Amino acid sequence: MRAGAPFKIAIFADLHFGENAWTDWGPRQDVNSVKVMNTVLDDENPDFVIYLGDVITANNILIANASLYWDQAISPTKSRGIPWASVFGNHDDALFEWPMEWFSAPGIPRLICPEANSTHSGAEACSFRGTHRLELMKHEIDHNALSFSKNGPKELWPSVSNYVLQVSSSDGPKSPVVYLYFLDSGGGSYPEVISTAQADWFRHKSDQINPDLRVPELIFWHIPSRAYKKVAPRFGIHRPCVGLINKEGVAAQKAELGIMKLLTKRPSVKAIFVGHNHGLDWCCPNEKLWLCFARHTGYGGYGDWARGARILEITQKPFSVKSWIRMEDNVVHSRVVLSP
Amino acid sequence: MRAGAPFKIAIFADLHFGENAWTDWGPRQDVNSVKVMNTVLDDENPDFVIYLGDVITANNILIANASLYWDQAISPTKSRGIPWASVFGNHDDALFEWPMEWFSAPGIPRLICPEANSTHSGAEACSFRGTHRLELMKHEIDHNALSFSKNGPKELWPSVSNYVLQVSSSDGPKSPVVYLYFLDSGGGSYPEVISTAQADWFRHKSDQINPDLRVPELIFWHIPSRAYKKVAPRFGIHRPCVGLINKEGVAAQKAELGIMKLLTKRPSVKAIFVGHNHGLDWCCPNEKLWLCFARHTGYGGYGDWARGARILEITQKPFSVKSWIRMEDNVVHSRVVLSP
Repeated sequence: MRAGAPFKIAIFADLHFGENAWTDWGPRQDVNSVKVMNTVLDDENPDFVIYLGDVITANNILIANASLYWDQAISPTKSRGIPWASVFGNHDDALFEWPMEWFSAPGIPRLICPEANSTHSGAEACSFRGTHRLELMKHEIDHNALSFSKNGPKELWPSVSNYVLQVSSSDGPKSPVVYLYFLDSGGGSYPEVISTAQADWFRHKSDQINPDLRVPELIFWHIPSRAYKKVAPRFGIHRPCVGLINKEGVAAQKAELGIMKLLTKRPSVKAIFVGHNHGLDWCCPNEKLWLCFARHTGYGGYGDWARGARILEITQKPFSVKSWIRMEDNVVHSRVVLSP
Repeated sequence: MRAGAPFKIAIFADLHFGENAWTDWGPRQDVNSVKVMNTVLDDENPDFVIYLGDVITANNILIANASLYWDQAISPTKSRGIPWASVFGNHDDALFEWPMEWFSAPGIPRLICPEANSTHSGAEACSFRGTHRLELMKHEIDHNALSFSKNGPKELWPSVSNYVLQVSSSDGPKSPVVYLYFLDSGGGSYPEVISTAQADWFRHKSDQINPDLRVPELIFWHIPSRAYKKVAPRFGIHRPCVGLINKEGVAAQKAELGIMKLLTKRPSVKAIFVGHNHGLDWCCPNEKLWLCFARHTGYGGYGDWARGARILEITQKPFSVKSWIRMEDNVVHSRVVLSP
């Protein structure tokens, strides 16, 4: 971050690029999602962007390499020269789901499938499988100098996007202002959980780089942990929660295997940010730790709630984290101070 | 078939090779399945073998190319020099299912994964995806001169094993004795159906090669069609049905899209043979068409009913199809005449 200036992050959640490429509405959605991102980036001019999972809807993507759609999703950020990081959601490497109706009389629509391999054609060029996490991430990293995404340690496979980024000020590049942790909450090709191994990795890593808890920490993953169900407001959104839509139940991870216990006990962790639920955009405190939803950014995925993006604004002296939601019609709402 | 001699087919159904390779019982099952096949082949000495789907349990196979297990399943037949044909079941290209417990404290067991590519290692050598139908079939056909399996027409993708074999007598190789039709009933990477396109293919093909309905036809696929539910005996097995076990409901295809109407109206079609239900081994007539289950042959897959294989014996003059079930303890039961 620039010395003296706040550091601003835009969170793009649940873009769901690549739905129904064989129809009109699928590609149109992606055009609209690009517009939302353009609006948010122009209005907020963030220093950094976080892609919070479900960047693509792989279960709708019938081409050999889904990175084509991934590239479209990062293009608004990339074209502005803004650095970014991404974390996986449950749809990013999901298996292609053949629509049942394609097997009845109208048959399979005429699909235009890029040739993955010149020796193959027809059925073989249209892949029967998704592009797996390692391939997606390798493509993003290899082709983008602005990407801060990482595969993360091999020991944590099949969960892939587990890593930490250090935010420093230009006047003290060695003293971190905040750590941003990214964890893969699973789904798609494997269960929707944060594993015990991932929790162990977080414990070791955070003890190693921030042993005295002096540096604040923010956490990002896709699927809400089960703790979100406990703090979820009932009927509307009331203090201490802050947000605009509370339209569905929390679709939580399948199990809680230790990560929440670690985060809750660690006072340096200020907030967790998740996507996944398109009809929820609130932040609620769980003791001293804020549990926040992002805001559905993409026109892909279920739900017709207006699109937007959660913004984080971090200041160094004194340290603070403020947040709000920027909508595609430029309106701002749900301002909240997450720290101190 | 040899002139004057009956033509005998053994049907190996639901072998489910490759389950839980990381435990003791998984590989032990496959050893036992080989024993069942050896017993049946030694007792019956068939002229031909049909692998009726679920040859492997791909949702348990974590290696890059599941053909390793497929090869094991065909080895007893191959080593005796017996020709065979195979058709896909719903498990053959299913996506690997990560066990939930691997993400808790004990972690992922130490897996021995063949190196698919020397530039990859660890997570990447253990594939996250199944081996798709085209790859499995290509491997079988390319490596086995005795295999009569075919990919089938590209227009029918993603269903792959759609083809017809002509059985002729050595004293009249140009005059067919019977046609054996193989159809892919889906499942795994796409819905469990026989499509309208497959039904159209059958209509065109059968009109073309057997326009006057003079040659009898037998049909083989994996998942019972919905018509099986209608003829299923209740409480035991009574005439006109013939069989020994009737231990579960028919797990039928998700829709009926035309194939049964064609087959029922065509007097040259004598019987359909399916697997899929391990607890059913009956044949029941549906008007003049017999609907038969095979018999669970493999130790893989659910169910502890004793293993065996349905045998077909075809004679030319006069044409007849008889069937029985040969068990792994050498016992024979459920003799039935399916034609005339």
